[in-house]
Amino acid sequence: MALGRFVSFEGIDGCGKSTHATRLARELEHEGLEVVLVRDPGTTRLSEKIRALLLDPANSDMSRECELLLYEAARAQLVAEVVRPALERGAWVLADRFCDSTTAYQGGGRSIDAAFVETANELGSLGVVPDLTFVFDLDVEEAARRRGEEPDRIELEGEAFAESVRRAYLALAEREADRVRVIDARGTKGQTFSQVKDVLAERFEGECQ
Amino acid sequence: MALGRFVSFEGIDGCGKSTHATRLARELEHEGLEVVLVRDPGTTRLSEKIRALLLDPANSDMSRECELLLYEAARAQLVAEVVRPALERGAWVLADRFCDSTTAYQGGGRSIDAAFVETANELGSLGVVPDLTFVFDLDVEEAARRRGEEPDRIELEGEAFAESVRRAYLALAEREADRVRVIDARGTKGQTFSQVKDVLAERFEGECQ
Repeated sequence: MALGRFVSFEGIDGCGKSTHATRLARELEHEGLEVVLVRDPGTTRLSEKIRALLLDPANSDMSRECELLLYEAARAQLVAEVVRPALERGAWVLADRFCDSTTAYQGGGRSIDAAFVETANELGSLGVVPDLTFVFDLDVEEAARRRGEEPDRIELEGEAFAESVRRAYLALAEREADRVRVIDARGTKGQTFSQVKDVLAERFEGECQ
Repeated sequence: MALGRFVSFEGIDGCGKSTHATRLARELEHEGLEVVLVRDPGTTRLSEKIRALLLDPANSDMSRECELLLYEAARAQLVAEVVRPALERGAWVLADRFCDSTTAYQGGGRSIDAAFVETANELGSLGVVPDLTFVFDLDVEEAARRRGEEPDRIELEGEAFAESVRRAYLALAEREADRVRVIDARGTKGQTFSQVKDVLAERFEGECQ
């Protein structure tokens, strides 16, 4: 029954995905489209509570499977409460992270078995899959420089972890080349965003401009 | 590698399972066995935090799939941190609720698709299955009378919900007759406990007396 469009923004922390998701949301709204911008985990009252558990550095005793299932719980709430209703009424949903983050961070970063992660993603997403996914690719040193700020529990994992996550994203983009598009995020914001617009125009020709 | 014994105690709220789990733990300890008594969700620091989210009546906006996945997240932490290590060193683990609660409450009570619940249980349990499960069976009115106290978010669901949960437990006991044994909980505590002891003696002959 999904009539709207679902686009997710992925990559390691500091890659610029949130900036570009916000900018695209503004542009699509200017074209008169209904746009719902979400972040996963988060957005709903309850998902934000779960996000707080996930990112709190005090929860260093969290097992990797508990972590994965908390992400899925937050996601299930987000999909049921916001994403699915928005798609059903024909809105564009732009998501700052979705299932692919779990594949990259819990699968690639934490080395949880790929079948376990895939099954968990099917449950947590309630079967909702993005029509298009951008992976903003940037080397981990540059991403860390751009990030600044106080690191959360996941960011504290360091460079080798971020490198595994980056490799998992690139492997995913090869496996699912139709849905997942890699954006070179090394240039200026303008250069990066024009790649986003090009892919979008090609993928949804005539629907959003 | 599991060398210990894993016994779970199930049933609707007020059925007496916690009382009997505690009593059995004490008796097995008197026989010189190492016993680890856990409650699911809960026991570990993090699982208790997730339990608090689950039972707080303020979280009435929780979707049924989010609820299910939070139970699994709490369970994964409990298994990784307590249950699996205990079984590996040969202890008896007695659990006040485990996966069958999810089958009965989220499957039976909330009508989530059985395959979805089963898959989620496989993930949350990390594949650990009780050797023996007691279902304490009691009609819902009597259970409500015995319960007393302030109701939590799940107990607030009322009698029709409890009735669906009870039926789901009995259906499960039919499907998995080998592992799941129904205990008639209508009598006195002594009468109920002697049924527990009888089943235990038959199931683990020579191991615990």
